[in-house]
Amino acid sequence: MQTEDKLLMMPGPVKVPSSVLRAMSKPMINHRSKDFSEIIDECQKLMGPMFNTNPDNIVIISGSGSAGMEAAIGSVINKGEKVISLENGKFGERFKEISFKYGDTVPLEFEWGDSFDLDLIEEKLDAGDISAITMVHNETSAGILNPAKEVGKLAKKYDALFILDVITSFGGDCVKFDEWGVDIAVAGSQKCIAAPPGLSMVAMSEKALSKMEETTCRPYYLDLLAYKNSISKEMKETPYTPAVSLFYGLLEALRIADSEGIENRIKRHRDMTKSVRDAMAAMGIEMFPNLNKYSRYSNTVSAMKSPEGLSGEDIKKEMSNRGIIIAGGQNRLKGKIFRIGSMGAVTPLDLMTTISELELILYENKVIDKIGEGMRHI
Amino acid sequence: MQTEDKLLMMPGPVKVPSSVLRAMSKPMINHRSKDFSEIIDECQKLMGPMFNTNPDNIVIISGSGSAGMEAAIGSVINKGEKVISLENGKFGERFKEISFKYGDTVPLEFEWGDSFDLDLIEEKLDAGDISAITMVHNETSAGILNPAKEVGKLAKKYDALFILDVITSFGGDCVKFDEWGVDIAVAGSQKCIAAPPGLSMVAMSEKALSKMEETTCRPYYLDLLAYKNSISKEMKETPYTPAVSLFYGLLEALRIADSEGIENRIKRHRDMTKSVRDAMAAMGIEMFPNLNKYSRYSNTVSAMKSPEGLSGEDIKKEMSNRGIIIAGGQNRLKGKIFRIGSMGAVTPLDLMTTISELELILYENKVIDKIGEGMRHI
Repeated sequence: MQTEDKLLMMPGPVKVPSSVLRAMSKPMINHRSKDFSEIIDECQKLMGPMFNTNPDNIVIISGSGSAGMEAAIGSVINKGEKVISLENGKFGERFKEISFKYGDTVPLEFEWGDSFDLDLIEEKLDAGDISAITMVHNETSAGILNPAKEVGKLAKKYDALFILDVITSFGGDCVKFDEWGVDIAVAGSQKCIAAPPGLSMVAMSEKALSKMEETTCRPYYLDLLAYKNSISKEMKETPYTPAVSLFYGLLEALRIADSEGIENRIKRHRDMTKSVRDAMAAMGIEMFPNLNKYSRYSNTVSAMKSPEGLSGEDIKKEMSNRGIIIAGGQNRLKGKIFRIGSMGAVTPLDLMTTISELELILYENKVIDKIGEGMRHI
Repeated sequence: MQTEDKLLMMPGPVKVPSSVLRAMSKPMINHRSKDFSEIIDECQKLMGPMFNTNPDNIVIISGSGSAGMEAAIGSVINKGEKVISLENGKFGERFKEISFKYGDTVPLEFEWGDSFDLDLIEEKLDAGDISAITMVHNETSAGILNPAKEVGKLAKKYDALFILDVITSFGGDCVKFDEWGVDIAVAGSQKCIAAPPGLSMVAMSEKALSKMEETTCRPYYLDLLAYKNSISKEMKETPYTPAVSLFYGLLEALRIADSEGIENRIKRHRDMTKSVRDAMAAMGIEMFPNLNKYSRYSNTVSAMKSPEGLSGEDIKKEMSNRGIIIAGGQNRLKGKIFRIGSMGAVTPLDLMTTISELELILYENKVIDKIGEGMRHI
């Protein structure tokens, strides 16, 4: 089986619909043209209801989610300003690493997969003079959904900017930018939107935009204010040459999401991911995250503890041999967990194939002693 | 005529060959896989002879040429270090703007389109303690080819790093990384290589790599050392999610360039661009750059002075109405010049179409009084 014919069940990049792939084959156009301006404009309009904010304040960076994360921090944080960096997984850690480059980071580290302690967060805020809080909404590395609404409320109370990574929730789970008081939200093209990787979509509040004006050491390529100024012209542009083909793909993917309807799409993601968890419970496989009353299992990726005698890496390898790409654990979680994405264009049939093969592997490795309990839940 | 069916004769993005467009429609694969590692590896091997350096020190950033330019400066310049920033066009100016963000910039500004004065450069170097010189090899905005070899020699003499933008010369004109003593060269995917925009390919010397180890405030997403470390593993990777589809496109474009043969490709570019200049001379249209004995007309883009009574913008607009996209002047050159790219997959037929239409426009606007002098040279 050729790699490109394997079933991608990772938490991104995900399977990309054929019409999105075809869209990328369109001939090149001048990116300083009315036609390209219209592509930007339509993408913004389609993303407005997905971020739940003003489409005019959404920009698209030619770079991956990490580029968007750096743009978010670098565009609003001056040297010496304090940033609380919440971490309960690899992407929270990434925010922390980026944050160290720009501000005076106050790390708040929890065990990966553990829930945040809101009291501790408030304590840090109360200790004074915090300019921003960074948080990952859907922590892909640990399969946990962090409490955006609650942290947003705290940020507001202490007048800190709330910077939220929605890379793996945007387009597949609820993102309420305005209602939660988010100031900068960073999405990615290659997750629940099911476009190819390489673009990061960033929504900004008026408060964030004002803060950018006072931020003197903003990066160059990743300066959000430059992106905002370029889309504020009569003809919408990007400040630097954009990845035109990826914009073609993104637009088609957003049209698909729009025609499905964002509420339906969120429900579909939730249902699919719940069926994965139900299948795991039926096979006696434990979920990885430690929830509390504010956190939830992710609705787009499931992280499971490796069963005794079979590491996450073993499972990943066995699945790959059978033609299905799932994910293991990253960094310190390597071997300890395995993860299945249910993002974007994944179908119940894809889930059935995945759970059936997984069930066989668990059976052949004597983790379970009969077949059929898991797949029955898909 | 639909925009995507217009003939792109700008200095990038350029017309992309159909097989490159088709390559981008391939299904998504995991970017942490042997298959993706092989794509990186083959791209490196094909680019080695185009940069004329060690393929192992070539990395690919998912971001446009400007991202590569920032990566080059940000990865080797510490706060307070002096950088001479040579400028005779918009992209030299861009290097200067980026440079201000990282080091202590020593601008050396010439009129856009004028040649560099090597004595002045040496004077600045001699004044002391310069860490790096930035230069644009092929200054697209002015159609001038700057003296890389000579400036490289000066950089070496004064032990400064030589950072060279080869975005619009790479793959279409001679780039001798090792021989010229370049330390970091930044190429782009959407110019003479004729791949889609969105990738920047960066070659690094051992000296540059050592300097990166001592540079403490390197950016995050654009940290060249992170890219180098990721390709130095047994399985070649990128530090952050790459734009997989653009890598498919780049690989196909590099294979096309390789099968043409880099020497043939350079000759073809030189011949095509010379024929544009010859046509202009025959029609009495003056070239824009002010050459001296070290500079040359660009071999990949031609910049012409607007004839009396007809601005560059008028010509650009008229050409666009007829289905051909050429470029005007940028920023302070707007209206004063017009530019025709002869990069990548452009053919003599495309040039004939372009010059014929231009000749008609000039005739109809009474700039020339007979038809046929220009097209005869294509």
